[in-house]
Amino acid sequence: MKITHAQERKLVTGILTTAKFPAEDADTISKVITHSDFTGVYSHGLSRLTRYIRQIEAGVLNPQPDFKTVLDDDTLLVVDGDNGSGIVSVNKAYDQALEKAKKFGVGIATGRHNANIGCGSYYGWRAAEDEMICVLCCNTYAFSAPYGGADRMIGTNPIIVSIPTGEEYPMVLDISTTNVAMGKIQAFEREGKPIPETWANDYDGKPTTDASKAYALTPIAFHKGYGLAVMVDALSTMLSGAAYGSDIGLFSKLEMENTGFFLMLLDPSRFMPIEEFHKTADRYIRMMKSSRKADGVEEIFMPGEIERRTFKKFMETGIEVSEKLQQELTDLCHGLGVPEDVDTFEKLLQYYEA
Amino acid sequence: MKITHAQERKLVTGILTTAKFPAEDADTISKVITHSDFTGVYSHGLSRLTRYIRQIEAGVLNPQPDFKTVLDDDTLLVVDGDNGSGIVSVNKAYDQALEKAKKFGVGIATGRHNANIGCGSYYGWRAAEDEMICVLCCNTYAFSAPYGGADRMIGTNPIIVSIPTGEEYPMVLDISTTNVAMGKIQAFEREGKPIPETWANDYDGKPTTDASKAYALTPIAFHKGYGLAVMVDALSTMLSGAAYGSDIGLFSKLEMENTGFFLMLLDPSRFMPIEEFHKTADRYIRMMKSSRKADGVEEIFMPGEIERRTFKKFMETGIEVSEKLQQELTDLCHGLGVPEDVDTFEKLLQYYEA
Repeated sequence: MKITHAQERKLVTGILTTAKFPAEDADTISKVITHSDFTGVYSHGLSRLTRYIRQIEAGVLNPQPDFKTVLDDDTLLVVDGDNGSGIVSVNKAYDQALEKAKKFGVGIATGRHNANIGCGSYYGWRAAEDEMICVLCCNTYAFSAPYGGADRMIGTNPIIVSIPTGEEYPMVLDISTTNVAMGKIQAFEREGKPIPETWANDYDGKPTTDASKAYALTPIAFHKGYGLAVMVDALSTMLSGAAYGSDIGLFSKLEMENTGFFLMLLDPSRFMPIEEFHKTADRYIRMMKSSRKADGVEEIFMPGEIERRTFKKFMETGIEVSEKLQQELTDLCHGLGVPEDVDTFEKLLQYYEA
Repeated sequence: MKITHAQERKLVTGILTTAKFPAEDADTISKVITHSDFTGVYSHGLSRLTRYIRQIEAGVLNPQPDFKTVLDDDTLLVVDGDNGSGIVSVNKAYDQALEKAKKFGVGIATGRHNANIGCGSYYGWRAAEDEMICVLCCNTYAFSAPYGGADRMIGTNPIIVSIPTGEEYPMVLDISTTNVAMGKIQAFEREGKPIPETWANDYDGKPTTDASKAYALTPIAFHKGYGLAVMVDALSTMLSGAAYGSDIGLFSKLEMENTGFFLMLLDPSRFMPIEEFHKTADRYIRMMKSSRKADGVEEIFMPGEIERRTFKKFMETGIEVSEKLQQELTDLCHGLGVPEDVDTFEKLLQYYEA
C-alpha cells in the first residue's frame, strides 16, 4: 500500500514516542526517516525502525539521552550524544553551529557517543534551506579495511556537501567512501547472486564474487577512497573523542556504536549578497547541464537532483510500503505495547493518526 | 645527474628571479617545486618551470602581481591573485588564514585570479608543521566532463586533507578527482601504448583505449567522483568569483587560468591539549597499520606516508634530473638571458649557486 508524507511523519513520530523518545526528538528523527523514504533512500527510512528499537532493547541506544555541549569556543563546539540517536545529536549540534556560522561566518560542530546519523542528504537539504554551505561527514560501523589490509577497521564513512542555489535545485552530494553498502551485498546473498569483484574482499583480503564470503567493503577509487575514509575518521572522531577503527561497536552484535561526526556550516552571504551567490550557483548548474551528452544519455544530473525529483514525485504519489515491511512494523509496535487489535498496517496508521 | 635539495632550491629561486619574480615569491615557489620533486611528484617539480615561463611570455601568468585581500571578515578572507602564481596566492592566503585559525579556531581563505597552485601536499605538510588540520581544494584546467556529458567543463580538482600527528608521520591526503592526469595519457600516447578504458572518454563521451583520442578524463568512482569535483568547483570558485566550467582558460592554448581555491585551517589545540590530539592520531595510525594484510601486501600505508619516505630517501640521495630535463632547463635559461657560456646543467647549477 501507499502512504503519504504526512502519514509517515505521524507513524514514525508515534512509534518513537511509544518507544520512549521525547516528543521533540521523535519528531526530529521522523523528519529524517521520512525524508529518506521520500527521496528514495529506503535503506535509511522506515526499514531502519526495527534496528533502532532493537538497539534500545539491547541498551546500546539511549532514547532519552542527556545531550551535552562539552565544548563551546567561538566558532567550535563539541557535543556528547550520551549514546542517543545520531540523528538527534547532529540536528542539535546543527542548531548551534548555525548560530556560530551566522555570528562568525563559519561554525564547526563535532560529536561523540552517537548512534547512526541517518540519511545524510537531510542535513544538506536543511543547510540549503538555511542558505548555508554544508560539509558533513561521519564514521560508521567498520565494514571496510585499510587499503591492503584484511581487518575491518573503517566504515562506509559518508561525505555530504551541499550548496544553496536560487532557481535551480540546491546541489547536495551524499556519497559513501565504499563502492556499496553491506546491505546491498546481503540482498545479493539472500537471492543467491554473485557480486561484482569490486564490491568486497573476503576474510583474507582477497576480492570475492561470493556474497556469502564478503567480509570487508572495497573503498571507492582504490587508495583514494581509502584516504578519504581515513580523513572522515580523523575529522569525525579525533576532535570529539568518538571511537574509531576496531573500537567501534558492530550493529550486528548490538554493541554500542560511539561514532562521531564533523559538521561545517559556512555562510555565503558573508562573501556577497546571497542573490549574487544564487546566480553564480544557478549559472554553474545550467552550464554543466548544457554539456553535449554521451550516447544514450538523455540528461546530465547535478548532485542531489535525482533525489529532488524523486521527492517531488513521491509527494504526489506517496511511497509504497511492502507487505513485508507493513508486517514487520505492526509486529514491532505490538512489542512496544500497541494493542493487539491494531492488527493491520492500516489500523496502525490510524492508531498513530489520532 | 643527481642534485641535492639545497641545489634545487637555489636553482629554482634563481631561475624565477631571472624571470622577474620578486625574491620572496621566487623563494616560495621554489619551496613548493622542490617539495614536489623530493616527494616523488615530478609532474609538479622542475618539469613545470618551462610551462610557467611560457605562461609569463604569453602574458597569462603575472610574475609581479598586485596580490590583494579583497575581503577580510572574522574567520573568512578572499584574495585576488592578479593572475599571478597560485603557489604564491595560496601561501599568502594561508598566512592570513592561519592567523584567523589561531584567533577564532578556524580560518577560511578562498581566492580568484590564480594560476596553478602546484603540488597540493606541500600545503598539507605546511599545516602539519603549524599543528593545524587543513582542507584545501582547487579547480584546475577543465579536462573532464560532467558525468554523462562529453564537453570538457570540470578539472582534475584535487582535494588535500592533512592531520597533524605526534611520533608518526602526519597524514596528508592529496588526490585528484579523476582517475589519472592528462599528462599520464599523453605519456602513453608518446609511447604508442593503449590506455585502460577507465581513464578517459573520447570527444563523443565514449570510453576509449586510444590515447590519441582521449578527450575528457574519467572521474574517480563514477558519479561519486563527479560529485566531489562539482563540490570542489563550488567551494573554490563560487565564493571567490574565480572562473569555472568552460570559462577556465586552457594551458595548451596559453589562456589565462583564473582558477580558484578553498582553504580551511582548523586548530585542534582548541579542542584539547595538542599532545592529546597527537596521541589520538598516532594511535589511529598504529591501529590501521597493525591490520592483518592481504596476500602479497607487506605493509599498510597511511595517506602521505609513501611521500614522506620518498622525501627521507631523496634528502639522502638527491633526485635524478634526466638529460632531457637538464637540456630543457639550460635552454630555458638562455631564453631568459643567462649567458650562453653557461652551456651545461652543471654550469647552470653553479651559476645560481653563487
